[in-house]
Amino acid sequence: MNFTFVTLFPNLIYPYFSDSILSRAKENGAIEINCVNPRDFSLDKHKKVDDYKIGGGAGLLMSAQPLFDTLSHLTKDKEAYFIFPAPAGKSFTQNDAKRLSKKEHIVFVCGRYEGIDERVVETYADEIFSIGDFVLTGGELPALAMCDAISRMVDGVLGNEKSLLEESFEDALLEAPSFTKPNVYDNLPVPSDFLKGNHAIISRLKNRMAYAKTCFHRPDLYKIVKNKRNYYAK
Amino acid sequence: MNFTFVTLFPNLIYPYFSDSILSRAKENGAIEINCVNPRDFSLDKHKKVDDYKIGGGAGLLMSAQPLFDTLSHLTKDKEAYFIFPAPAGKSFTQNDAKRLSKKEHIVFVCGRYEGIDERVVETYADEIFSIGDFVLTGGELPALAMCDAISRMVDGVLGNEKSLLEESFEDALLEAPSFTKPNVYDNLPVPSDFLKGNHAIISRLKNRMAYAKTCFHRPDLYKIVKNKRNYYAK
Repeated sequence: MNFTFVTLFPNLIYPYFSDSILSRAKENGAIEINCVNPRDFSLDKHKKVDDYKIGGGAGLLMSAQPLFDTLSHLTKDKEAYFIFPAPAGKSFTQNDAKRLSKKEHIVFVCGRYEGIDERVVETYADEIFSIGDFVLTGGELPALAMCDAISRMVDGVLGNEKSLLEESFEDALLEAPSFTKPNVYDNLPVPSDFLKGNHAIISRLKNRMAYAKTCFHRPDLYKIVKNKRNYYAK
Repeated sequence: MNFTFVTLFPNLIYPYFSDSILSRAKENGAIEINCVNPRDFSLDKHKKVDDYKIGGGAGLLMSAQPLFDTLSHLTKDKEAYFIFPAPAGKSFTQNDAKRLSKKEHIVFVCGRYEGIDERVVETYADEIFSIGDFVLTGGELPALAMCDAISRMVDGVLGNEKSLLEESFEDALLEAPSFTKPNVYDNLPVPSDFLKGNHAIISRLKNRMAYAKTCFHRPDLYKIVKNKRNYYAK
């Protein structure tokens, strides 16, 4: 699967794929990462890529021409699917990660400064996603986060496919707390049922802990789980 | 302001501060970035930092000893404030970014593999934050995102403080669309009122666009704005 980052700062992107799971995924060809810099498409003699807002307002915007030409260049690949990270987007979720892992080529268009000339967004955006109600210096981190979440769902990226089934959000439940050896660390013991080796009991206990954790931390998700359960019980 | 990342992969962290605004903030001393690797604190002869889950379950956890010793070492700074990125945390918001920008030293504890032995979290976490309902290969990206959002609120990081007042979430409204020159790009014109130079009209128009955008994309935020407005109208 192909990812292209449209960014003024490619050196904020590439290093993230230099280590750990995603580095291996790149090496074995499961994912491919490229950056395209709109500055290279700027027709301005100083390679300018930003300008003041029309109608006033503080700060600079990424201007239309360099981005239009960059994105038009990328549409040569008919499979290119354009995602704009932006605070005004819909919330990116695990379901989106799963769904988008079936695409062949995703292009993340990373805004900087005060954002992007809206005409670019309206012309090219297939989807606009936010990763939360906070403001960042650029779209690079949300793009990396989406790329990471999507990549994990691509065949051949994770070693252990089974672990995909147990993790948070797979059934709208948060994952139960987990423990490793030693059984007692510095007077802190692991819950005793975990040590007795009865997998049915452990599994029930974990399920209960997952419900309790979801109910406490995320009442909004808990509601979804409860409705689902009622739905299946009908 | 000081940020420490506890991570097995420091080379996923440092490059993010090598360019753009945050690189300048580091250079002028507004923020300081350090990484501490739990592997350096492992007492295992192979410097192991992970282990199987007690009670079964797929995948590995970051084990207790290396993390306990790393975090205990960091508590030598009494100001150290421990944040764990985790899918089960509360949602990180712009208000958190503002609030946390007053801290002297924030430590992000970045999980990997299937997570962290829960005893570490229970002992050290001051706050647990999530940046969305999706699963990542590690806590590094959410930690970077929080660090970025917090850093922007630290004095001396952004050049133009005025732009802070206009952006998304500052008053629970999404930011209005913006445009740069040219006035018409490839047959796409800027809304004509933006070009007439009447700032009262432009400001009212932008405000309306912000409301419309929030209402359409984020009915949840729109409700908050409306309630606020009713509150002040009383």
